[in-house]
Amino acid sequence: MTTHATAPDDSFHVFDTTLRDGAQREGINLTVADKLAVARYLDEFGVGFIEGGWPGANPRDTEFFQRAREEIDFQHAQLVAFGSTRKAGGTAAEDPQVKGLVDSGAPVVTLVAKAHDRHVELALRTTLEENLEMVRDTVSYLRGQGRRVFVDCEHFFDGYRANPGYALSVVRTAAEAGADVVVLCDTNGGMLPAQVHTVVAEVLAATGARLGIHAQDDSGCAVANTFAAVDAGATHVQCTANGYGERVGNCNLFPVVAALELKYRRRVLPDGALAEMTRISHAIAEVVNLAPSTHQPYVGVSAFAHKGGLHASAIKVDPDLYQHIDPEVVGNTMRMLVSDMAGRASVELKGKELGFDLSGDRDLVGRVVAGVKERELQGYTYEAADASFELMLRAEVGGRPVAYFRTESWRAIIEDRPDGSHANEATVKLWAKGERIVATAEGNGPVNALDLALRLGLERIYPQLAGFRLADYKVRILEGRQGTESITRVLITTSDGGAEWSTVGVGENVIAASWYALVDAYTYGLLRAGVEPAGD
Amino acid sequence: MTTHATAPDDSFHVFDTTLRDGAQREGINLTVADKLAVARYLDEFGVGFIEGGWPGANPRDTEFFQRAREEIDFQHAQLVAFGSTRKAGGTAAEDPQVKGLVDSGAPVVTLVAKAHDRHVELALRTTLEENLEMVRDTVSYLRGQGRRVFVDCEHFFDGYRANPGYALSVVRTAAEAGADVVVLCDTNGGMLPAQVHTVVAEVLAATGARLGIHAQDDSGCAVANTFAAVDAGATHVQCTANGYGERVGNCNLFPVVAALELKYRRRVLPDGALAEMTRISHAIAEVVNLAPSTHQPYVGVSAFAHKGGLHASAIKVDPDLYQHIDPEVVGNTMRMLVSDMAGRASVELKGKELGFDLSGDRDLVGRVVAGVKERELQGYTYEAADASFELMLRAEVGGRPVAYFRTESWRAIIEDRPDGSHANEATVKLWAKGERIVATAEGNGPVNALDLALRLGLERIYPQLAGFRLADYKVRILEGRQGTESITRVLITTSDGGAEWSTVGVGENVIAASWYALVDAYTYGLLRAGVEPAGD
Repeated sequence: MTTHATAPDDSFHVFDTTLRDGAQREGINLTVADKLAVARYLDEFGVGFIEGGWPGANPRDTEFFQRAREEIDFQHAQLVAFGSTRKAGGTAAEDPQVKGLVDSGAPVVTLVAKAHDRHVELALRTTLEENLEMVRDTVSYLRGQGRRVFVDCEHFFDGYRANPGYALSVVRTAAEAGADVVVLCDTNGGMLPAQVHTVVAEVLAATGARLGIHAQDDSGCAVANTFAAVDAGATHVQCTANGYGERVGNCNLFPVVAALELKYRRRVLPDGALAEMTRISHAIAEVVNLAPSTHQPYVGVSAFAHKGGLHASAIKVDPDLYQHIDPEVVGNTMRMLVSDMAGRASVELKGKELGFDLSGDRDLVGRVVAGVKERELQGYTYEAADASFELMLRAEVGGRPVAYFRTESWRAIIEDRPDGSHANEATVKLWAKGERIVATAEGNGPVNALDLALRLGLERIYPQLAGFRLADYKVRILEGRQGTESITRVLITTSDGGAEWSTVGVGENVIAASWYALVDAYTYGLLRAGVEPAGD
Repeated sequence: MTTHATAPDDSFHVFDTTLRDGAQREGINLTVADKLAVARYLDEFGVGFIEGGWPGANPRDTEFFQRAREEIDFQHAQLVAFGSTRKAGGTAAEDPQVKGLVDSGAPVVTLVAKAHDRHVELALRTTLEENLEMVRDTVSYLRGQGRRVFVDCEHFFDGYRANPGYALSVVRTAAEAGADVVVLCDTNGGMLPAQVHTVVAEVLAATGARLGIHAQDDSGCAVANTFAAVDAGATHVQCTANGYGERVGNCNLFPVVAALELKYRRRVLPDGALAEMTRISHAIAEVVNLAPSTHQPYVGVSAFAHKGGLHASAIKVDPDLYQHIDPEVVGNTMRMLVSDMAGRASVELKGKELGFDLSGDRDLVGRVVAGVKERELQGYTYEAADASFELMLRAEVGGRPVAYFRTESWRAIIEDRPDGSHANEATVKLWAKGERIVATAEGNGPVNALDLALRLGLERIYPQLAGFRLADYKVRILEGRQGTESITRVLITTSDGGAEWSTVGVGENVIAASWYALVDAYTYGLLRAGVEPAGD
């Protein structure tokens, strides 16, 4: 485990801007309640600063600051109001926008300032000298109001390239007026780490100001650019949860703090927080209504999933040779995927994950490996269908399939009628507990109709089915170059309200494949619910 | 626009391993046909090397190498076979795995070798000296067989940290035995750019070997680690399309080549290739059946999307102040999320691509934009369905839909019989050239049965249909969290033996969606064949 030299303190800032810059992401639209929920998660995670929005400029953000003050007892974070330097030609004391920042009650204010000469002229439509005056006046005024002030120098890196003298004068002006941190922003996100390192080092040498970094991800280097800035002396990093943000996104908070803690050995979070990172990342995704990214570094469900059969035997002996960190440290877990490249070792590991010790029974493992290979040749895939794999494993261990009912036959009819509407009807004929069941249902498609007919037929005997819900349904056509004569694979995820499980079916058409996946889905659900198997 | 110092040549390698390492991604399972399709896109994009898989070890890969040699006329890329050094204690000349590499006929072989002492002992279970002998023997043997050889030093960075002397001796052995490039692999993906830079520089100084970099993305720094290695002197970069790969993924090809061309000003692709990058990225995603990442750098649909507001007027005056590159250079477009300007521009552009000059008719373009927006809301996508888009455009230009027949109704019946066999029967009722047609056919699935019934009914009137073949069929379920009650989108690619065209259908179930895509497919095919439209 990690040892840290120092506890987190003001010498290094983890600054989160999910609620302000992150909310610029296409597809994110946060209510005040959403913002409060995200703020709670961020505080629990232990970031030092939470930028909540632009109070005054946006009524939703004004309300957020008010309610956050009243409703949230922050344990770790300070709330930050974001705003702009005063208008050209006025005074900060009389600027209504600046007043909104003061009125928010936030103890910290981040002011965005222009540091690129062309932007001053084109977007602010004022002189370079007046822009400096706007920075000086607004920072001083807010300091006089008892606020801590950070200054975001927008388009800094492009501005420094275009006119380094002017960009530096903005940094100096902000620091001299009392800004605690001057944040260099790669607003267009085009920088590469070597450039960031050079510029941060030069600005530090030229101004002596405390520097921060705000990196957008347009080059795919935001996380690395943040490290480059830290390596060059920046002590304040601005990030968003899951990298949400405009265009490609902002610098992702999670890989930054994880590497600072685990690779830099720098203490930036409170005790125990890192182990909550995976949960908090997923929870924030749910609040903002985006599916958690499966392949996100550290926290994705695939981040520690191993497929290669080659390595499985060595992984058993020493997992740390095959992963850059212990996944438990960030609240994630290693997963062994069962695929056609898999051998005995990965089946044993997978069995262990599911609670079966198979290490003593070489014949059984051999039969399972052979079974997996044979089924995968037919088009099955078990890496995304744990429940189907477990049913196959249990059938081998128990010597007979796990079964609650037997299919005699089924039929689906899909009709396109002259008026353009569609009718979908399915009939199933089943046996369960010695009884023959015939049920018919209509649905909005043939699979939905089959699903409903199956439930209708079985619910009287297995009332648990009423609690199951199809949560996801995926279709893949295999050997696609053969057109509609291909094999079809269906993956179904089923939920009982709490847990979710995934099953797979393969058939010569989508309806047959769906049927097999549905049968596995309900069989596994009944097994999970503790119902005793009873075939016919 | 960019000016390049030199044309792409052997002095710098863009090496793609989508088909080998990329295929390790959880959820990707490629058929031989998929691999051939991806290889064609990669060759079109102009990478120098395409690693196709592990021939001999995997029957699917063996078949891929055979068919790629026969079916693909590579314009830019060389095909690379991946394999391992020989077994401990044997000879390369007699090793069946090494024979598989030679038999593949690939002109280039990448050999994976262990460079980390613990991995030699634990995974290979042999001595450090024998491992060096395995590298020497296998490289020499393959060179003797006339192959160019690259050596992937697995776990190099971790190995160099643990035992730098041994790691270096593997590099030296490989280079002395005749390997053209020794590739340093961050197999566990845990490195940060500064570490990569230091190690690559040290290895280069110590060995003088030509070095490559293979970075996994577990720290979220794979792209930046690749740049760090290039900065330190590496001249061979291994990447995968869209960053597909095990766990978090591999280094993403697209941001690497884009930055090399646009920021490093290094010529790594053939003329005109960079402008195809967005299309090729999305096409490869479709082939491997993953949704293209909306937020991927350079190529995501959101990568140049601006939430207008504040900057809108300044963006109009000088867009380059607000984007790190001109999106057109990579085949992407700026999108203003608050206006339909981008929509108009892309419809005009698309029209031009299809041979319609729409720039003079604002009303027409407006109607097409509105039509596209409405249909995309329903779930349509025209990015991968040019033929459906052209039919829509022609309907707007001509004032009426292009039609060869009219559907009265259709019906499909799918039956699972007690003996386990399935019957699939479809009936179509159509009107064409004033004639009512009723036709029934059986198929191996409902879509196949519908397809056959449609052909049976129409072939007498339109004999051209006999030459059409469904070349590809893809299903995607939209709004997947609603289970089987979701909307279904079907993409069909049809071939007339020479050309291929793609059509899209959306419906409340897979059969209805397939029907719409089939109707467009045959309509477009008849149009292409020069047949005069004739609705009823």
